[in-house]
Amino acid sequence: MIADRRKNALEYHEQGRPGKIAVVPTKSVGTAQDLSLAYSPGVAEPCLQIAETPDDVFRYTARGNLVAVVSNGTAVLGLGNIGPLASKPVMEGKGVLFKAFADIDVFDLEVGSEKAEDVIRFCELLEPTVGGINLEDISAPDCFIIERALKERLGIPVFHDDQHGTAIIAGAALINALEITDRSIQDARVVFSGAGASALSTAEHFQRLGVRKENILIVDSVGVIYEGREERMNEYKSPFAVKTDRRTLEEAMKDADVFIGLSVKGVVTKDMVRGMADDPIIFALANPDPEILPEEVAAVRQDAIMATGRSDYPNQVNNVLGFPFIFRGALDVRAKAINPEMMLAATTALADLAREQVPEVVKGAYEGSEIAYGRDYLIPKPFDRRVLYHVAPAVAQAAMDSGAARIDVELGEYRDRLRAKLGPGYELMRDMRDKARTKKARVIFPEGHNDTIIRAASQLVEDGICDPVLLGRAPRIQEKADLLGVDISGVEVIYAADLEEERSRYAEQLFEKRARKGLTLSEAEWNLFKPVYFAASMLENGEVDALVHGIEANYAEA
Amino acid sequence: MIADRRKNALEYHEQGRPGKIAVVPTKSVGTAQDLSLAYSPGVAEPCLQIAETPDDVFRYTARGNLVAVVSNGTAVLGLGNIGPLASKPVMEGKGVLFKAFADIDVFDLEVGSEKAEDVIRFCELLEPTVGGINLEDISAPDCFIIERALKERLGIPVFHDDQHGTAIIAGAALINALEITDRSIQDARVVFSGAGASALSTAEHFQRLGVRKENILIVDSVGVIYEGREERMNEYKSPFAVKTDRRTLEEAMKDADVFIGLSVKGVVTKDMVRGMADDPIIFALANPDPEILPEEVAAVRQDAIMATGRSDYPNQVNNVLGFPFIFRGALDVRAKAINPEMMLAATTALADLAREQVPEVVKGAYEGSEIAYGRDYLIPKPFDRRVLYHVAPAVAQAAMDSGAARIDVELGEYRDRLRAKLGPGYELMRDMRDKARTKKARVIFPEGHNDTIIRAASQLVEDGICDPVLLGRAPRIQEKADLLGVDISGVEVIYAADLEEERSRYAEQLFEKRARKGLTLSEAEWNLFKPVYFAASMLENGEVDALVHGIEANYAEA
Repeated sequence: MIADRRKNALEYHEQGRPGKIAVVPTKSVGTAQDLSLAYSPGVAEPCLQIAETPDDVFRYTARGNLVAVVSNGTAVLGLGNIGPLASKPVMEGKGVLFKAFADIDVFDLEVGSEKAEDVIRFCELLEPTVGGINLEDISAPDCFIIERALKERLGIPVFHDDQHGTAIIAGAALINALEITDRSIQDARVVFSGAGASALSTAEHFQRLGVRKENILIVDSVGVIYEGREERMNEYKSPFAVKTDRRTLEEAMKDADVFIGLSVKGVVTKDMVRGMADDPIIFALANPDPEILPEEVAAVRQDAIMATGRSDYPNQVNNVLGFPFIFRGALDVRAKAINPEMMLAATTALADLAREQVPEVVKGAYEGSEIAYGRDYLIPKPFDRRVLYHVAPAVAQAAMDSGAARIDVELGEYRDRLRAKLGPGYELMRDMRDKARTKKARVIFPEGHNDTIIRAASQLVEDGICDPVLLGRAPRIQEKADLLGVDISGVEVIYAADLEEERSRYAEQLFEKRARKGLTLSEAEWNLFKPVYFAASMLENGEVDALVHGIEANYAEA
Repeated sequence: MIADRRKNALEYHEQGRPGKIAVVPTKSVGTAQDLSLAYSPGVAEPCLQIAETPDDVFRYTARGNLVAVVSNGTAVLGLGNIGPLASKPVMEGKGVLFKAFADIDVFDLEVGSEKAEDVIRFCELLEPTVGGINLEDISAPDCFIIERALKERLGIPVFHDDQHGTAIIAGAALINALEITDRSIQDARVVFSGAGASALSTAEHFQRLGVRKENILIVDSVGVIYEGREERMNEYKSPFAVKTDRRTLEEAMKDADVFIGLSVKGVVTKDMVRGMADDPIIFALANPDPEILPEEVAAVRQDAIMATGRSDYPNQVNNVLGFPFIFRGALDVRAKAINPEMMLAATTALADLAREQVPEVVKGAYEGSEIAYGRDYLIPKPFDRRVLYHVAPAVAQAAMDSGAARIDVELGEYRDRLRAKLGPGYELMRDMRDKARTKKARVIFPEGHNDTIIRAASQLVEDGICDPVLLGRAPRIQEKADLLGVDISGVEVIYAADLEEERSRYAEQLFEKRARKGLTLSEAEWNLFKPVYFAASMLENGEVDALVHGIEANYAEA
């Protein structure tokens, strides 16, 4: 099982074009005329325009939709300091998530230094290139130092997802868990296990949400952070030191309303859970193994509300609910920063969305799980596409209200625009556009006997651009391939004449559709022997993703 | 005319998605399963693998095909120091050229500092991210300082195109011009006008090709660079100082075999050209206006061989003949550097290719111009796709021979692989893949009356993803669009029943193809009333680039 995951993950990264990203032109570049606009001499015009009006960089370049994911690889996933080179798959992956969830373009930049000052300088120098910077997998306390310095010095949003992502999403879950159990946030007593970047940031964010400072106890490997403690303290923990006699996690959790685990597997015992207040709220977020498993909690407390970082339990606190949409909103108003007001807005929007009715299409993606606002559904599901047009506008609004926005957007129109991106027609087109870049796109070529097509098919497979399917007689195509000296062992060949079942199924479809217009069943059956009609039927039935035809007429041999 | 160019260039950059690039996933990311491989938890596997075996970064990430185009905007085109923000359109454009000519992915990085040391530090920190660095539009002498420092410190190819690009291509033209006029390079007397980065680098490269140091005279704004001159000298010019009594450009050009202009418009007079040796070789490369125009030279010397930087005269010295393929070859053997041997190999390969017969497909792209090895065709045309599989393998071979390569490739196989990428079938597929990202792709939707299609079409136009064409009755589609509240003013609608000419043309084509199989002309004509057949015929005739059908069956309303 683990060996399988390893094999699958490595194959996924290696197949076709190595890695997970490519940079592509968004404008036509096929002719000399195109290139004279894209490059010299035409390109001088937008340059001059931006030199005169710097904000025009958002009109004429990709900067306004471009985010840098920056890491030096000092704290990658749970793997520790594996360095910038080995962090690259994670950073490319983060870029893929930005793109898949919010259509944001990402340059993943792995910085070759463990020094905070180098990362700071790198990002300062990078500022003209991008619309925002997402810091990633940088060890504490450097991540605090870097983020603080960059927030002071840069005029673009800087966000350290490891700190704030969890804070924002756990915050939404907290609001709803308290609402469901009819408690006030002002009185909630919250215990944190862990005093790393995300724990401290979450504790800070909870105060923004209304949790009182004196009601928060943070417990690290030494114990409770109390006023006067000296062992393993630092300037980031100090603000959370409180007057208390409690010293251990067990003592801290006695009568607590909320437990937030951002530490390590198994540190919470059933006894600790037993000691908590009524309707205890337990977010055990250590990954992949939580501080305590939901079934262990359930064994001792029927009244507990539970969240984890895992997809196989209810209430998954997954950062992908946050960063794509927070940056989307920030970029769309050209925000100077991602400030606390914007983070608060994201939390509120997520909490509110969870209370709305869940459409069937979302439920469909999560078969078998209960999806209605309640103890097992505190926050939206990670694949709920509505999050885009709920969270991004909320963040944009907060940016405008708090003075972080450089431009205003009309919120209703903005929301509609985001929503339109998610319509099924748009999805189809985007799929078509993106599928041609993945191994899984099947493209049918009805002219399977054509030399050019055979050569291209071989190359397309080798480069992992798509899965070509040639229509034609396999022996004849193989013979031609041998003559051409190309390897078509990875190319699928099908022959309509051999596929009686499909032919008659397609013919019936055709007949049903066209009978009123005079097509007979035998005519339809006869049509299906023709490669182009068979191919069109495959496309119509979703058995291929695209059809390419007419090559002989349009492309001369080079 | 100039106003038009300005308008076109600005519109090109602004239309649809601002700017010219996007970063896209190359692997499937549509499902939770995909994302669990692309990101946590699966992504940990390639990370661990790279941590153990650093070279595996080339197997599991995009680094091996990724080049950074780095500028600080201090010398952009002929526009001077317009800064990093305003340089961005040029850097994106350079990335587009890398992609279009050699399928290399580019991060364009605009560095916010005029200090050489900052650019150096930035690139050092950047090293783990990319497979190579192309420095661009950085003013002299900083460009020398930066390139020298990076070549010493980094283990990846670093190339300053403004210096070496012209050197490499002008070198190829020189070799062939001398060969055509039956002269030896050892005896050639060469005069340079200009002592900037590209002039000095070209002079250096010419020495590699066999020009003797004492036969080179460099003339800058002060005059000839002679031994003992003190005015406006620096460490970069000094190596080119020679013992000579000549002091002016006119004196320098007397009896010279070769003139290389890398300076400014109009500095060469007809008299200077009159004084040159027999069969004078004049490369007037100032852009857009050369040191002297070809027609001015022709007026005084029938025996001159002329090259410029312009596309409207023969022998265009265009950098796009060099950098994409030099980096392609360097990346494909994971070279540690781009060394003089590799540059020399590029020059030789370009010179050799110009002597080969030019295929019709290349001639077709350059109607009206003479394309056969000779005075008016010294080097390949910029759009000659053969350059890829001639230059890149030569560079790779030189990297292997000189010890710069980290891995070996089998040259014949490598050349075939590159060549296959240029087959018309491959081009078609790539076009299809890329066209969906440009405004100009026409996509036909036979189900034009479908609500989903109408909504999608409107959105596709707004986002500039493609030009959708709906098949159906315009009034009915407009009525539906009004009900849906979507704007389809930019959407093309056509109705097969109205298009008698096309219908009968398509019907005849169909009839000709299928008559042997029993289709009558009237049956063919009848078929063409059906939207899907009409659409297929449009695709077959190249009138649209793609066909999307079957939406009703496959996509439920969200």
